[in-house]
Amino acid sequence: MSRTRPGHLHGKSAERRSLIIAAAERLFRDIGYRKTTVADIARDLSMSAGNIYRFFASKAELNEAVAEKLMGEVDAAMQVIAERPGTAAIRLRQVIRTVAQLNAERAAIDFKLHELLCIAVTQHWSAAEDHTRRMDTLLAKIIAEGIAAGEFRPQDALLAARTLRIATLRFSQPELMTERADMLEPTLEHMLDFCLVALRSTSV
Amino acid sequence: MSRTRPGHLHGKSAERRSLIIAAAERLFRDIGYRKTTVADIARDLSMSAGNIYRFFASKAELNEAVAEKLMGEVDAAMQVIAERPGTAAIRLRQVIRTVAQLNAERAAIDFKLHELLCIAVTQHWSAAEDHTRRMDTLLAKIIAEGIAAGEFRPQDALLAARTLRIATLRFSQPELMTERADMLEPTLEHMLDFCLVALRSTSV
Repeated sequence: MSRTRPGHLHGKSAERRSLIIAAAERLFRDIGYRKTTVADIARDLSMSAGNIYRFFASKAELNEAVAEKLMGEVDAAMQVIAERPGTAAIRLRQVIRTVAQLNAERAAIDFKLHELLCIAVTQHWSAAEDHTRRMDTLLAKIIAEGIAAGEFRPQDALLAARTLRIATLRFSQPELMTERADMLEPTLEHMLDFCLVALRSTSV
Repeated sequence: MSRTRPGHLHGKSAERRSLIIAAAERLFRDIGYRKTTVADIARDLSMSAGNIYRFFASKAELNEAVAEKLMGEVDAAMQVIAERPGTAAIRLRQVIRTVAQLNAERAAIDFKLHELLCIAVTQHWSAAEDHTRRMDTLLAKIIAEGIAAGEFRPQDALLAARTLRIATLRFSQPELMTERADMLEPTLEHMLDFCLVALRSTSV
């Protein structure tokens, strides 16, 4: 198979691949990923379907590429916040709030893209697994900084990061967010308060 | 409509209603709730479908009654543990472990009943909402006892109960449990350790 892998694309090829993903995203947003065909995307870009298959072996690979792009946007927003000044507690709050907010906005405005992400998470697409790993790494980095600064108790930073992510899953996982949108308490802020007490406290 | 409501059933009628639910559960376990028809249940009990409709207006009502029975069994197990002697922390751990374990066993052994419960939760059937409320009430009672005994910091016991339930959702919600069964960390015990620190600590 002579299909070019994303990692080896340069210049024009990389640009064309991005254009295809952007067109797919647009169509997924409007008519949903299930109803969008490779032929629809080709037509939108005035190119042949064969041209698209040079970059993506299947419609499934395109679905995954769009999910990867959307999750990458969340990753980028998390990264910016993590690097801001502020205590570890403030940055943890802001990172998790941002993920929750971006996902909530997407669920409200672009429900069809939200559906794609629900499937990506529940079916363990590698785009979703990579996003989770990046989130854990980022949260662990902030927690480690909090431990070093004496703000949090000494603890396994990566385990604490994963625990924090799972405790707040209801607010950040696309499917759970919409499924439990009518839940009043705990709010995300209640949950963050609760988790921050656990991270800080030395009375284990 | 002359259909008899469960609350008003006595003696033979209540007994017949229970028999219908037990037969439905048996068939749901074997062939799944979607494939089981009211006619199947009637045949299993050697009664007419009309007889079943005296107790349940629709197949949907029967689905809900079976979900209610299964969740009632979890409630009963929780209740027994809550009333045992022991610190509040030990009892909270045991209650949540029990819910997690009963659901995990059902997912492993009776996957078709597990599927019914997944739907009950995600579609907000009143059986599932009632179960959640009972769990919150029970956890809040134990937390209030822990506060009174000086074991936990002063706090809103019901809010803390809900926060604890949401933080441990990954381990007790039927759908999430199977969806994330391959997740190694945090284990339920890690999460319980983390939450108990938050309940105890006075360094808010």
